[in-house]
Amino acid sequence: MKLPLALGILALAASPAAAQRARDLGVPFEGVPGALNAITDVPAVEVGQVTLIAGEGVVKVGSGPVRTGVTVVFPRGQALADKAVYGGFFDLNGNGEMTGRAYLEDFGIVQGPIAITDTNGIGQVYAGIQQWSSRKFGSATWPVVGETYNGRLSDIEGFHVTSATALAALDAAKPGPVAEGNVGGGTGMVCFGFKGGIGTASRTISAEGKHFTVGVLVQCNTGDRKVLRIAGTPVGRELGRRWLPCFDAKLSPVAKAPKCSGQAEAGVAPPDTGSIIIVVGTDAPLMPQQLNRLARRAAMGLARLGSYSGNSSGDMIVTFSTQPAEVDHEAQDTPSPINPLGSTALDPLFEGAVQATEEAIVNALVAARTMTGANGQRIFALPHDELTAILTKYNRLETLSK
Amino acid sequence: MKLPLALGILALAASPAAAQRARDLGVPFEGVPGALNAITDVPAVEVGQVTLIAGEGVVKVGSGPVRTGVTVVFPRGQALADKAVYGGFFDLNGNGEMTGRAYLEDFGIVQGPIAITDTNGIGQVYAGIQQWSSRKFGSATWPVVGETYNGRLSDIEGFHVTSATALAALDAAKPGPVAEGNVGGGTGMVCFGFKGGIGTASRTISAEGKHFTVGVLVQCNTGDRKVLRIAGTPVGRELGRRWLPCFDAKLSPVAKAPKCSGQAEAGVAPPDTGSIIIVVGTDAPLMPQQLNRLARRAAMGLARLGSYSGNSSGDMIVTFSTQPAEVDHEAQDTPSPINPLGSTALDPLFEGAVQATEEAIVNALVAARTMTGANGQRIFALPHDELTAILTKYNRLETLSK
Amino acid sequence: MKLPLALGILALAASPAAAQRARDLGVPFEGVPGALNAITDVPAVEVGQVTLIAGEGVVKVGSGPVRTGVTVVFPRGQALADKAVYGGFFDLNGNGEMTGRAYLEDFGIVQGPIAITDTNGIGQVYAGIQQWSSRKFGSATWPVVGETYNGRLSDIEGFHVTSATALAALDAAKPGPVAEGNVGGGTGMVCFGFKGGIGTASRTISAEGKHFTVGVLVQCNTGDRKVLRIAGTPVGRELGRRWLPCFDAKLSPVAKAPKCSGQAEAGVAPPDTGSIIIVVGTDAPLMPQQLNRLARRAAMGLARLGSYSGNSSGDMIVTFSTQPAEVDHEAQDTPSPINPLGSTALDPLFEGAVQATEEAIVNALVAARTMTGANGQRIFALPHDELTAILTKYNRLETLSK
Amino acid sequence: MKLPLALGILALAASPAAAQRARDLGVPFEGVPGALNAITDVPAVEVGQVTLIAGEGVVKVGSGPVRTGVTVVFPRGQALADKAVYGGFFDLNGNGEMTGRAYLEDFGIVQGPIAITDTNGIGQVYAGIQQWSSRKFGSATWPVVGETYNGRLSDIEGFHVTSATALAALDAAKPGPVAEGNVGGGTGMVCFGFKGGIGTASRTISAEGKHFTVGVLVQCNTGDRKVLRIAGTPVGRELGRRWLPCFDAKLSPVAKAPKCSGQAEAGVAPPDTGSIIIVVGTDAPLMPQQLNRLARRAAMGLARLGSYSGNSSGDMIVTFSTQPAEVDHEAQDTPSPINPLGSTALDPLFEGAVQATEEAIVNALVAARTMTGANGQRIFALPHDELTAILTKYNRLETLSK
Repeated sequence: MKLPLALGILALAASPAAAQRARDLGVPFEGVPGALNAITDVPAVEVGQVTLIAGEGVVKVGSGPVRTGVTVVFPRGQALADKAVYGGFFDLNGNGEMTGRAYLEDFGIVQGPIAITDTNGIGQVYAGIQQWSSRKFGSATWPVVGETYNGRLSDIEGFHVTSATALAALDAAKPGPVAEGNVGGGTGMVCFGFKGGIGTASRTISAEGKHFTVGVLVQCNTGDRKVLRIAGTPVGRELGRRWLPCFDAKLSPVAKAPKCSGQAEAGVAPPDTGSIIIVVGTDAPLMPQQLNRLARRAAMGLARLGSYSGNSSGDMIVTFSTQPAEVDHEAQDTPSPINPLGSTALDPLFEGAVQATEEAIVNALVAARTMTGANGQRIFALPHDELTAILTKYNRLETLSK
Repeated sequence: MKLPLALGILALAASPAAAQRARDLGVPFEGVPGALNAITDVPAVEVGQVTLIAGEGVVKVGSGPVRTGVTVVFPRGQALADKAVYGGFFDLNGNGEMTGRAYLEDFGIVQGPIAITDTNGIGQVYAGIQQWSSRKFGSATWPVVGETYNGRLSDIEGFHVTSATALAALDAAKPGPVAEGNVGGGTGMVCFGFKGGIGTASRTISAEGKHFTVGVLVQCNTGDRKVLRIAGTPVGRELGRRWLPCFDAKLSPVAKAPKCSGQAEAGVAPPDTGSIIIVVGTDAPLMPQQLNRLARRAAMGLARLGSYSGNSSGDMIVTFSTQPAEVDHEAQDTPSPINPLGSTALDPLFEGAVQATEEAIVNALVAARTMTGANGQRIFALPHDELTAILTKYNRLETLSK
Repeated sequence: MKLPLALGILALAASPAAAQRARDLGVPFEGVPGALNAITDVPAVEVGQVTLIAGEGVVKVGSGPVRTGVTVVFPRGQALADKAVYGGFFDLNGNGEMTGRAYLEDFGIVQGPIAITDTNGIGQVYAGIQQWSSRKFGSATWPVVGETYNGRLSDIEGFHVTSATALAALDAAKPGPVAEGNVGGGTGMVCFGFKGGIGTASRTISAEGKHFTVGVLVQCNTGDRKVLRIAGTPVGRELGRRWLPCFDAKLSPVAKAPKCSGQAEAGVAPPDTGSIIIVVGTDAPLMPQQLNRLARRAAMGLARLGSYSGNSSGDMIVTFSTQPAEVDHEAQDTPSPINPLGSTALDPLFEGAVQATEEAIVNALVAARTMTGANGQRIFALPHDELTAILTKYNRLETLSK
Repeated sequence: MKLPLALGILALAASPAAAQRARDLGVPFEGVPGALNAITDVPAVEVGQVTLIAGEGVVKVGSGPVRTGVTVVFPRGQALADKAVYGGFFDLNGNGEMTGRAYLEDFGIVQGPIAITDTNGIGQVYAGIQQWSSRKFGSATWPVVGETYNGRLSDIEGFHVTSATALAALDAAKPGPVAEGNVGGGTGMVCFGFKGGIGTASRTISAEGKHFTVGVLVQCNTGDRKVLRIAGTPVGRELGRRWLPCFDAKLSPVAKAPKCSGQAEAGVAPPDTGSIIIVVGTDAPLMPQQLNRLARRAAMGLARLGSYSGNSSGDMIVTFSTQPAEVDHEAQDTPSPINPLGSTALDPLFEGAVQATEEAIVNALVAARTMTGANGQRIFALPHDELTAILTKYNRLETLSK
């Protein structure tokens, strides 16, 4: 049955279990997604997330409000977390931190799980992963830990992410659907001026007669609201000053801050601060240099949203291949034979990575819900009806057939 | 007077002096261009081009057909060509050659002029520039020489670019308007399956209370026809198989090749081969690390065209700042004081570089004319009326006011 | 007077105040050291160290034995720890971790203090520094944290370094002499098969008519015993199998391990595992790209010891300039004017960095004392009399004049 | 028969056909060389050299004196020159040019032959190689072309290296012994203040139960005379001002230049200008990232000579593996299976590369002969008897047994 669009949206909104995703709204994308349209379509990949939400109102350092968490990605699942996979890296804009760089550059490997959290959680998450792997495998692995800054919504100087948070996220990792929006490391994040956070997508591609999947998971906390493009339509320009961040009059101590009115039009456009962490995984067999090249394509996916990767944004991309299955590429006394894809076979993979990154970011925007956090600041969700109206205006709304 | 669009195009086409550019057709862009909307809006920048076109029909190596040339960019003009400027670099996809890398990475400088030619012209152009600078300044400089592959239209193995071609391009360099399309190094190039070549654009920006210009020049020989987006509209998808490359029945010896019919619908979609060289200049005072960061934004401009930077493409970007004026940053025994822009002041510059790169590529597509070259292969110009029709369909055609 | 070796060691051990350094023994070096011959000769630099030594015998994970600690370097002292300095980086062999890479590469800055600890202390030290700076300055800085592996002597999987250890090291930082050998992060380290750890040295140089200092601090846990060269003499070859690591018969549970005999000749040569972290600071005004170049010279200093930078070694170098004094190079909304040294003026600085690195490593070897740690493993100090005997044999012993 | 040392030297000197090498003089080295102690010990490697020497006296640009040439290295010989090998790169100091960087970084390949020439010969040699490969294989390959500056001895601004010189060197390439000293690209080069040029050496190593060879070829034009160390002995310091460059009184127009006297003591110490190009090849199967790591070890070999890699020196290293034999790693539509060495197996290879680089440089110094060139400048050969005397003084002279 095909519902009228506006009604369909309302119906879905009334049912929180049926989380909406970008293509549910009719946003058009290229390419063929995997079954879940998630990074977990790549066989063996597991994702774990822990969300911390507590308190409201004025920030009291150490007490809250808390809007944070941890998201972890295991390239081959928890069980094989001690077996390094080949990996790659691209630093689009280095205003941030991502650990594990030396191993990526010199050995081309990701040794431990990949984790994303808030800026002041790096050390605790790093420690948590080392403790977890030490207990599980007898020696600590070297994790890749990235971050984005959530000080707009959360008491970031209160250091609410602990090594226990990381341990919980690690233990929670599983295959299957991935929660999006205000969850895990993405809990308190702002994406192109709207509430953002975690998003994911995937593409299935053919190369050299075989089928492969490339999956993407983003923690989106980047973007200049005014340049936002979705499916090529000028969403940022169309929205003008509507839905800009504002402060709840009752919760906020900030005298001059724009107070939230009924029409939410008193807000102030935030600059392109924040950051985005992009994780790209695939089951295509790739060498490290090929994975470095793959990483740059994720930046091209971000560019489709209109981003210019602002100075204050730490935009970092890590990639990995799960193949050959179960081979430990860091086992330093045994060779790691590899039969990588030929170079020309990379094009569908590159194209798929661009497409999946583009969709994962839009998914983060669509999934996230309006949040009010530190000092009463409110970050609005991208209004679904405004988005579909803009897509309609520019003749880009996809007919919803499923 | 405002002509009906189709008529306006014909009128302009009848007057070769009034070359059309993307915004003349109503393609919408963001930002404010400089007076010429060209890299030469950056004060002191000079561009010189030499175009070599000769012969037609079957390739006879060493004889032709010839569709090639050389384009040179002097950051501070010919007169100051021996004074190094600060420069940056980004290699989006390394299937190609660009010389001068060590100086860029380790000293952060561009020492000589920047030159672009065809793949088999690198050595001769390098030699020509060294000879030119040796005679002019007493010792040879180290040029940045890039290339893209024109073997589809030109007898590339005939090595028709010589050091004399380079010398002529150097001597021809001047400020002012820059010819676009089938000229200079871009003469025989193919861009997103259409005839491409040289394109340019600029943006004026404000930072720290001052006005600066960022200018871009591209030699576009890259891109997968089917993914081409212009102003966010799916041009490649809309055109389907129309205007694909074909072979002139009289000139081509290739038996199975698609012959050009009246409707030009028998063509075959070329893969995303080729390459793109992007030169970005500015008069904003920047340190080398800032110029490396600027270079990555040009890749984001390319991404707006739908590119995924295919494996076979050598996509390389070189950036430079002309400031402080006349200071030789390679003068190794004197300090080079610099008062660079603060980091947060970079955002308008980053945004301008993305915008100007996007427009320069569309300008190359709009300016280029249909060309028939080696073995009768014909590469069509992007049909202006089809483009405006697509922009109209997606409600993106800008009203032509000037 | 030359004492019998064993007596000499005891005598020295009894007099902690008179720590010996390499040139006290007559090891010849090039160049002119600063007053302290330490990284703290660079004005404003402060070093803090905390040493954790507890327990002996069989490893019980979480209990000990403990042989670890933390060493921190503040480029401009604690008071200015929130003001970023320009920095550079070189990864000679990436088998390890050093955080802060993105800021170093893209912004050319070291934002927080630099810390060195054991491999499993990274997360806790990172967290400790963020907490310290958050409390002190209102927001967390991004530290550079490096590590080397001390699992040979310490219960490394017991995670004995905590954020409190880091806080203590930060608070302990001060100008002046720097303790060497078995201290701080270097407590449990092994250098060229001998007991190693922390070492430091400096050089004063002249450039462009001014005087500058370049200082080096190393945490040496690297090196293949058989290739060790000191002052060009083949120390490793001369010592043969003498003084190789062994296990204390009473303390060790390892049945087949070589037990320590009277002559310490039953040991087994360890491979070139471990790692070395090298911190190079200067008060010469340098741009980030110049600091990257400076970093590579430290690798050349290590090479003088005979090292080939073995596969298992994480050999990483971070450099910084304290100039211009008090300017915050990360203050993103204000320009950072810089008047760097001209390129040719760098030679004395490069030479000084090579010399000081060479000496700092020998200082670590000379200062360290024999240590018995995890499972009764004993790592011998480089015997001073053997060293002077070898220098004498090769006519390289310097007359001790001061 | 074992001759007294001094007599042996004289005898050899009297027989120019029997070129001397460093170990013939008793210079001690570590490790086991291959049969030729040359890069051509690596199976399939071919080296070709062309030497241009003409004229003397005052420089007349375009006429001479000429002291230059070209040296080429084919990783798998001329016949397989169109089949790319895996390669790596390290830029120790980027004051120079080496082409082919993008392919090395992004694809990890060396596509064409590797060539070394003088600074103003890059373009012509690049062009010559493209022409050669175009004619031989139907399309041009992308060569790696390096250079060092010979303006001290040769009329470098006269551009005497042409594409024909390159073609001759390519055609001359063959397996077997490699001429050293004043030959090929090294003809006019100055190494640590002495006449330098081409040098080579090799090591055989065992890894994972197999035997491999690592070979090195250098074009040495670098080094500060005063810091020269050979086998750890302070050769530069011992020689003081003896054998510094001087000008032939009859040939030189330079009024104030130091004239060559009988004792050659009137010279002036040249700074550490120049450059060194180091080519490292092996038949061990390595991935590109491993080859990048191998490249850094060559820098450690240079460091053993006392070098600090002066600012004016372009010190660049390119590495390659010839395995798997005959596989074209650039064939972009077929996979390139590889079974690389495990990481820990790399140590002997790393050590061998350090050793062979050290020896290749000393071989260049020992093989080169005193040359008088441009404007009568004379660069002395390292005097063999002085060298052996210094080695004797420091108890480092090896007994000559063969």
